[in-house]
Amino acid sequence: MDREREMERGEKKEGKGDKMTHHCTKFSGHWKIIVFDEECFQGRRHEFTSECCNVMEFGFETVRSLRIESGAWIGYEHASYQGQQFVLERGEYPQCDAFSGSNAYHIERMTSFRPIACANHRECRMTIYERENFLGRKGELSDDYPSLQAMGWCNNEVGSLRIQSGAFVCYQYPGYRGYQYIMECDRHCGEYKHFREFGSHSQTPQIQSIRRIQQ
Amino acid sequence: MDREREMERGEKKEGKGDKMTHHCTKFSGHWKIIVFDEECFQGRRHEFTSECCNVMEFGFETVRSLRIESGAWIGYEHASYQGQQFVLERGEYPQCDAFSGSNAYHIERMTSFRPIACANHRECRMTIYERENFLGRKGELSDDYPSLQAMGWCNNEVGSLRIQSGAFVCYQYPGYRGYQYIMECDRHCGEYKHFREFGSHSQTPQIQSIRRIQQ
Repeated sequence: MDREREMERGEKKEGKGDKMTHHCTKFSGHWKIIVFDEECFQGRRHEFTSECCNVMEFGFETVRSLRIESGAWIGYEHASYQGQQFVLERGEYPQCDAFSGSNAYHIERMTSFRPIACANHRECRMTIYERENFLGRKGELSDDYPSLQAMGWCNNEVGSLRIQSGAFVCYQYPGYRGYQYIMECDRHCGEYKHFREFGSHSQTPQIQSIRRIQQ
Repeated sequence: MDREREMERGEKKEGKGDKMTHHCTKFSGHWKIIVFDEECFQGRRHEFTSECCNVMEFGFETVRSLRIESGAWIGYEHASYQGQQFVLERGEYPQCDAFSGSNAYHIERMTSFRPIACANHRECRMTIYERENFLGRKGELSDDYPSLQAMGWCNNEVGSLRIQSGAFVCYQYPGYRGYQYIMECDRHCGEYKHFREFGSHSQTPQIQSIRRIQQ
């Protein structure tokens, strides 16, 4: 990917517009997150290139700003990958509100985080089912869906789901809002047969938008 | 689109999975939003099939829940399409937090709203520029970009932009978070030459994710 980015920079120098497409073929595996204990990238700072089970062990009370330098990550409210979860992609998050998952439930902390190893934006496939245990109507997804209902899904809930490849993030409300649930092909064997398996904070099968995760 | 949905229902009855793809060819133009003055679709209720400049004129103090039955809409914090703006696509929004735009700045009201007439998910094209007045490096977009930086964009800002077709929503932070700016090909002649034109609440050129709007 770095090579691609260099190529795009090269094009720009020649004055051509760069056509930005979803090139993420195979991720090199160089994950990097930089976390800070003050807002706006101030205060104590630490770089991680792999998972962190409890940021307090590194002298942090909490993380108040962060920068993703490469890879896609999941942040968790509590230690040991518990509590509300939220996807973190490349870019700058100058305050908690910029990375916390939900508008509905304000979290003020990120205590653990890990890379999403299986994220593969090009080859993402999942099947959603109306009811738990892979029953009822089903829909096959391989794209981004800001409104499942606009795409023909029957209601505002998903009872169970199966990830064949890649990783997705599912949201409670349309337009990628509300609670986030990150679903990966290499966790739970890609099978999420009841909404309680969506995440340790999931209280309802309500899912109204879904998108792929990119590295 | 309704016919397509019917077809998908037909398939489901036959027990086949429905392949949900971005079919939104040409929108029939039947916009419909239902607003409520209490949470969870309770209290005073009103249906709209076209724009509403001030919901207070219909006896509402504010809107606390809403349902989009068809079309894509923009909601605004204040009357006369002013203040923070947020995209509304088909689905259910049982409380303010479900539809308000930003995690960073909590709005508690939606006072005006209107359909996004030019939203055409299939043919969306825009050009982003590094600096104001369409200067500096540029990037051509025709897809969804949860992280502009992951796709090769140089920094966390967009100085100006031009919409050739369709409508997009631009977000302050990666992963479709933070302030929203809705950009349409048939507003401002599709030209947004300074971040102050992004919206009446825009205070910075910071844009880190962009996606197309679907009807």
